Amino acid sequence: MTGYERIDGRLWDEPRPVSITVGYQRSAEGSALIEMGGTKVLCAASLEERVPAFLRGQGTGWVTAEYSMLPRATNTRSSRERDTGRVSGRSQEIQRLIGRSLRAVTDMAALGERTVQIDCDVIEADGGTRTASITGAYVALQQAMMMLVRQRVIRRVPLEYPVAAVSVGILKDELLLDLCYAEDYEADVDFNVVMTANGGLVELQGATEARPFARPMVERVMALAARGLEPVFRAQREALRRV
Amino acid sequence: MTGYERIDGRLWDEPRPVSITVGYQRSAEGSALIEMGGTKVLCAASLEERVPAFLRGQGTGWVTAEYSMLPRATNTRSSRERDTGRVSGRSQEIQRLIGRSLRAVTDMAALGERTVQIDCDVIEADGGTRTASITGAYVALQQAMMMLVRQRVIRRVPLEYPVAAVSVGILKDELLLDLCYAEDYEADVDFNVVMTANGGLVELQGATEARPFARPMVERVMALAARGLEPVFRAQREALRRV
Amino acid sequence: MTGYERIDGRLWDEPRPVSITVGYQRSAEGSALIEMGGTKVLCAASLEERVPAFLRGQGTGWVTAEYSMLPRATNTRSSRERDTGRVSGRSQEIQRLIGRSLRAVTDMAALGERTVQIDCDVIEADGGTRTASITGAYVALQQAMMMLVRQRVIRRVPLEYPVAAVSVGILKDELLLDLCYAEDYEADVDFNVVMTANGGLVELQGATEARPFARPMVERVMALAARGLEPVFRAQREALRRV
Amino acid sequence: MTGYERIDGRLWDEPRPVSITVGYQRSAEGSALIEMGGTKVLCAASLEERVPAFLRGQGTGWVTAEYSMLPRATNTRSSRERDTGRVSGRSQEIQRLIGRSLRAVTDMAALGERTVQIDCDVIEADGGTRTASITGAYVALQQAMMMLVRQRVIRRVPLEYPVAAVSVGILKDELLLDLCYAEDYEADVDFNVVMTANGGLVELQGATEARPFARPMVERVMALAARGLEPVFRAQREALRRV
Amino acid sequence: MTGYERIDGRLWDEPRPVSITVGYQRSAEGSALIEMGGTKVLCAASLEERVPAFLRGQGTGWVTAEYSMLPRATNTRSSRERDTGRVSGRSQEIQRLIGRSLRAVTDMAALGERTVQIDCDVIEADGGTRTASITGAYVALQQAMMMLVRQRVIRRVPLEYPVAAVSVGILKDELLLDLCYAEDYEADVDFNVVMTANGGLVELQGATEARPFARPMVERVMALAARGLEPVFRAQREALRRV
Amino acid sequence: MTGYERIDGRLWDEPRPVSITVGYQRSAEGSALIEMGGTKVLCAASLEERVPAFLRGQGTGWVTAEYSMLPRATNTRSSRERDTGRVSGRSQEIQRLIGRSLRAVTDMAALGERTVQIDCDVIEADGGTRTASITGAYVALQQAMMMLVRQRVIRRVPLEYPVAAVSVGILKDELLLDLCYAEDYEADVDFNVVMTANGGLVELQGATEARPFARPMVERVMALAARGLEPVFRAQREALRRV
Repeated sequence: MTGYERIDGRLWDEPRPVSITVGYQRSAEGSALIEMGGTKVLCAASLEERVPAFLRGQGTGWVTAEYSMLPRATNTRSSRERDTGRVSGRSQEIQRLIGRSLRAVTDMAALGERTVQIDCDVIEADGGTRTASITGAYVALQQAMMMLVRQRVIRRVPLEYPVAAVSVGILKDELLLDLCYAEDYEADVDFNVVMTANGGLVELQGATEARPFARPMVERVMALAARGLEPVFRAQREALRRV
Repeated sequence: MTGYERIDGRLWDEPRPVSITVGYQRSAEGSALIEMGGTKVLCAASLEERVPAFLRGQGTGWVTAEYSMLPRATNTRSSRERDTGRVSGRSQEIQRLIGRSLRAVTDMAALGERTVQIDCDVIEADGGTRTASITGAYVALQQAMMMLVRQRVIRRVPLEYPVAAVSVGILKDELLLDLCYAEDYEADVDFNVVMTANGGLVELQGATEARPFARPMVERVMALAARGLEPVFRAQREALRRV
Repeated sequence: MTGYERIDGRLWDEPRPVSITVGYQRSAEGSALIEMGGTKVLCAASLEERVPAFLRGQGTGWVTAEYSMLPRATNTRSSRERDTGRVSGRSQEIQRLIGRSLRAVTDMAALGERTVQIDCDVIEADGGTRTASITGAYVALQQAMMMLVRQRVIRRVPLEYPVAAVSVGILKDELLLDLCYAEDYEADVDFNVVMTANGGLVELQGATEARPFARPMVERVMALAARGLEPVFRAQREALRRV
Repeated sequence: MTGYERIDGRLWDEPRPVSITVGYQRSAEGSALIEMGGTKVLCAASLEERVPAFLRGQGTGWVTAEYSMLPRATNTRSSRERDTGRVSGRSQEIQRLIGRSLRAVTDMAALGERTVQIDCDVIEADGGTRTASITGAYVALQQAMMMLVRQRVIRRVPLEYPVAAVSVGILKDELLLDLCYAEDYEADVDFNVVMTANGGLVELQGATEARPFARPMVERVMALAARGLEPVFRAQREALRRV
Repeated sequence: MTGYERIDGRLWDEPRPVSITVGYQRSAEGSALIEMGGTKVLCAASLEERVPAFLRGQGTGWVTAEYSMLPRATNTRSSRERDTGRVSGRSQEIQRLIGRSLRAVTDMAALGERTVQIDCDVIEADGGTRTASITGAYVALQQAMMMLVRQRVIRRVPLEYPVAAVSVGILKDELLLDLCYAEDYEADVDFNVVMTANGGLVELQGATEARPFARPMVERVMALAARGLEPVFRAQREALRRV
Repeated sequence: MTGYERIDGRLWDEPRPVSITVGYQRSAEGSALIEMGGTKVLCAASLEERVPAFLRGQGTGWVTAEYSMLPRATNTRSSRERDTGRVSGRSQEIQRLIGRSLRAVTDMAALGERTVQIDCDVIEADGGTRTASITGAYVALQQAMMMLVRQRVIRRVPLEYPVAAVSVGILKDELLLDLCYAEDYEADVDFNVVMTANGGLVELQGATEARPFARPMVERVMALAARGLEPVFRAQREALRRV
C-alpha cells in the first residue's frame, strides 16, 4: 500500500477534494454542481406529475436518470450523441447505474405517483464522472424533495439514506482510492462502489480488462470505499444545510 | 419610447449586466462562460488540424458552430436532441448564425488549413441565448487563436474585429433593447443584430409573427443595437485582457 | 449602380420573369407551380381539421411549411434527406422562414381551429428558391382558403395582405436584385426581403460571409426590394384571378 | 371480358393516354416527365464516374433507382420519408423493381465503370406509378446515354432494347389493363408486367390479397400486357426522337 | 432438362429435404423451425388483441410479418439492421411477400379483431430463405390459430388452405427447382412461386437480371413449382399432426 | 439457507442443467448453442482480419460482442431494435459485459492483429441470458481460435483460462444460485459473477433495487458462484472436446 506515487501527490487512500453547489441552475426543482478534483458535473432534478406506463395507477413514484458529456469536457472534443441519435453504450450503462442507485434509497410509495428525472451533464471529465454524478444527483434529488415538502405536496422527504459513490482501482496489486483520469487509464481493475451513509451497499461493480483478481481483494476494496466516502457524505450534508 | 415598464426595471435602452469568464473549461483551447442577465452559456473553441472536404488543399481555414441547450436550462425540462437524433430547426438556425457571424471576422488565409469548432451549450435560458452565444463564442475563439500565436503556429491572431450581438424587440411600436424571456414572448417583432466593434453589420434579422413593420423602424433598431453593444464589447475586451 | 454585367443580361434592378400556374397538383386544396427565371418550385397547401397540441381548444388556426429539393434540382445530384433522416440546417432555416412569413399575414382566429400545411418542393434550383417558395406558397394558400370559402366553411379568405419575397445582393458595393445561382455564389452580402403588397416588412435577413456592411446600405436594399416585388405581386394576382 | 364498366369509360383492354416530355429538368443528364392518365412522374438520370464497391475494378457499370412521392401526390397528404429516416417498404420494393428492370436491358460492359442513378419522383399518383416510373426512367436513361455518346465517352448507346411496364388487374375474373387508383383498390389480383419492345419478359409480378388465382390466367395477363404496351413503346420512341 | 449437374447431386426437379419442428420457441403461440437443405428459419406467430388503425372497428383481423437474418446466418458476417435503424430493401420486400401470402389464405372475418404478428428469423441461409419462411410461417400461424380454437376464442381455424412456396431458376434455358445459394447466384432468371395446397396461385414473381425470358417459360415454371411443392405440403401436414 | 421453495424444485445452491452444442451455425468460425434450463442462446464467433482504428499497427487483437433477443424469446413479443435504430440500454450493458469478460482471458498479442466478433442471440429467455451468453460465447470463441490453430495462422489458442458466469440472487436474506426469470423478478439483490476456471474474478456486479445489502454478503455470494460454476466449466470442456 505504498510504492505507487500518485500524479497529484495524494496518498493511496485519499480522495480528491469535493465541493457541491446547490441550486446552480435556478429554474430546476433541484440542482447541484459537484466538483471532485478536476471533474465537474452539473446535476438537475426535474419533477413530473406522472409515472411511466408500467407504474400507472399504483400510487408509487419513479426516479430515472440521463447522463451526457459536453463535447469539450475532455482533452479532445467528442461529437454530440444527437449526431447519431444514439446514446453510447457507456452513457447508457452509467445512467442506468445512477437511476438504480437513487431508486434504492427512495421510498416510492411516499413519493406518490410522480417522477423525478435526473440529468447529469459532465462539464469537465477527469475520472470518476459516474461516481460524482451519483453523489451530486442525490443532492439535487433531495433539494427537489424538500421543495415538495415545503409546498406541502408530501409530508416528509421520501429518501431513506443519503447515497454516494467512489471508485477504487487496483494497480499492480495495490489499491488506489478515487482515480483521476490518468490513474483510471493505468489501473488493472476498476471498482465503483455505491453506498449509503450508514454503510449499506447499493451497487458494487468490479471489472478487469487486464487479468483476473482474487476474491479477498473485494473485501479490502469495500472497506477502503467506505472510509473514502466519509468526506463525501459530509460535503452532501453541508451543501444541503444551506437549502 | 417610454410607457412600457420592463419586468426587471430596466430602461428601454438598457442592456442586462454582462459577465464573461474566460477559460472556464480548462481542457479546451478556448472557453468562455458568458452570463447576460439570467442567461448563461458555456462556449468552447476546439482546434482541429484539418478542414471540411470542400476546402481541402486551398490553404484556408474554417470556423463552424454547434448550439444546444441542457435539458433543464428552461423552466420545464425539454428532452435531449440525442433522443430523436435530430437537431431541432431552432438549434440549426442558431448554430448556422453563430458560425456565419464568426466567419465574417476571421481571416481564413491567416488561420491556415485548420478548423475551429465552436460549442455553445446553454446552461440557463432567459432570452437572448443566440446573441449571448455569439458574444461568448467570439471570446473563446480569440482565446484559442491567442494560444496558436503563443505556440508560434501562426504569427498573429487572424481576427479582424471583435463581433458581438444583441436583440431588439418592438412591442406596441416601442423599441426594447436586449429582451429577457418574458419580453421576448410578448414582443411583436424580434430583431437580432450582429455587429463588429467598429460598427459594421455582420448579420441583421428582423421577423414578425404579429403584424408587418414599417421600413423606418429598421434604422432605429440598428442605432439602438449599436449603442447597446458598447458595454458588451467592453466586457469582451476586459475578459480577454486576463488571458 | 452600373459596372457589373449580369450573366443573363438583366439590369441591376431587374427581376427575372415570373410565371405562376395555379392548381398544378389537382388533388391538393391549393397548388402553385412558380417559375422565376430558371428556378421552379411546386407549392402545395393541404388542409387539416386539427391544430398542433399547443393551440388546441383556443379556436385559432395554424400555418406551417416544409421545404425540400428534388435530388436533381441542381447541377450535381444531391442525396435525399430521407437517407439520413435529418432535415438539413438549410432546409429547416428556409421552411421556418416560409412558415413565419405566411403566418404573419393570416388571421388565425378567422381561419378557425385548422392547419394549413404548406409543401414547397424545388424542381429546379437556380437561385432564390426560398423567396420563390414564399411567393408561390402564398398563392397555394389563398387557393386553399378560397376553397374553404366556396364550401362555406369560413366566410371570408382569412388573409390580410398578399406576401411575397425577393433577394437582393451586394457585390463590390453594388446592389443586384433577384440573384440567380451564379450571382448568389459571387455576392458579398445576401439579403432576403419578405414584404406585403402594401409595403410592410414581414421578414428582413441580411448576412455577410465576406466583410461587414454599413448601416445605410439597409435602407437602399429595402427600397430596391419593394420596387422589385411589384411584378411579383402582379403575377400572384393574375394567377389567382383564374381560380 | 365485358361486364365491368370502367370509371373513366375505357374498354377493358385500353390503356390510358401516355405523354412523355424529355428534358424537363434541364440540369440533369437525362430527364423525362411521364403522364399516364392522372399519374405524373418526374424521372431523372444522373451520371457518376464511379461504381459501387462490389463492382470496382471490373470495368462494368451499374444502374440503380430511387422512388419517392411528393407529400401531396395523393388525395390526402402523406408525410415525408425524411421525417422517419426510413424508406417505406413500398418505396423500397418499387425502386428495387425499377433498378432491376433497367439493368436487365443495359449492357454493363459497354457502359464502362460508371453509374447511372435514376430518380423517380411521383408528382401525382392515380395508380400505376411504378409502371409509369419504369417507362419514364427508360427514356431518361436513354437520354443520358445519348449524351455520353455525343460527348464521345462511349461509342454506342449501351441499351439492348427499350423496356416499359404496365399493370393488369383481375376483378371478378375479368381482366383490366392499366388500372387507375380506384380500380387498383377494387381489384382481386394485381399484376405488373415489365417487357422489352421485342416481347421479352423482364419481370412478372402477380399477387392476390383476396383469393388465389388459376394458372391459365397468367398467360392471358401476359398477352394483354404485351398488347397494351404497344402505344407505350411508341410514346417512348417519339419522345426520344426529339432529343 | 438434363445437362446441368447440381452442386448437391439433386435432379433438376428435386427439392431439398424439408423438416419442420413445431413449437420450437415454447413461449410463442405458434412456432416452427423449418430446415430446407442448409437453410434454417425460425418462425414465430404472436397473437395481439388489436388491429392496425386502418382496420379498427370493422370486426376483421390482420396478419403481418417481419423477416430478419442473424448476423452469422451467412458465410461472412453481416451487420445488424438495428445499427442503421433501417430495414434493408431486401428484408422489406421479403416480409411484405410473407405477409401478403398468409393474408391470402386467412379468413379475416372469422379471425375477428386481432392481429397475428409473424417473425421469421433466418438462422442459416443457403438459398430460398423467403420461400422457407412462407412455408414455416404457415405452420406457426396454424399452431397459433389452433390454440385460439382450443381456448374457444374462435370456433374454427380461420385458414382456407395451406400455403407454401418454392423457388425455380432458369439457368442457360434449363429449369432448376429449389435453388441453393450457389445455384441462385448462377441463375439467369429467378422465380418465387407461392401456392395453396389445392394448386391456386397466391403470388408469382419472376425476375431477370441477365436477359429477358420468353412467355412460354412461365407455364413450365408454374408446373414444376406445383409438383415440387407436394413434399413441402406433406411436411406441413405431418408437423401439424403432432400439435 | 432453507425456507424458500424454488419454482422448479431446485435446491438453493443448485444450478439448472446446462447443455452446449458446438458448431450449430455451420457457416461460422465458432458457434455454440447453449441451453441453461429454459434459457437458450445462440453464440457465434466471426473472425475478421483487421482491428478497430485505436489498435491499428500495434500487432494486437480485439474481441467484441453484440447481444440481442429474438422478438419472441419472451412471453410477450417485444419489438425489434432495428425499428428504433437504437440498441437498448439493457442490451448495451450486457454486450459490453460479454466483451470485457472475454477480453480478460484473451492474449491479444498472441491473437495478432485480428478481431473476433461475438454475436449472442437469445432464442428463449428464462433468466440468466447474460451469464449464459458469456459461457456460450467462450465456447464459440475457443472453437474459432482452434480453427486458426488448425489453419496454422497462429501457433496456440490465445486463451488463458476458460471463463463462465452465473447469477446469484438475495431473496429475503437467503441466497439463490442461477435465478430463473420468475426468481429474478422476485429477488431483492441480483449478482452476476464472471470467473475463470481457476477461480479468479473477471467481473463482479451486485445491485439492489430494493434495499441496501451488507458487506459480508458479498463473500458468500462469490463462494456460492464459484461452486455453482463447476458443472458449467465441465459442460464447456465436454462440448469443446468434440470439436
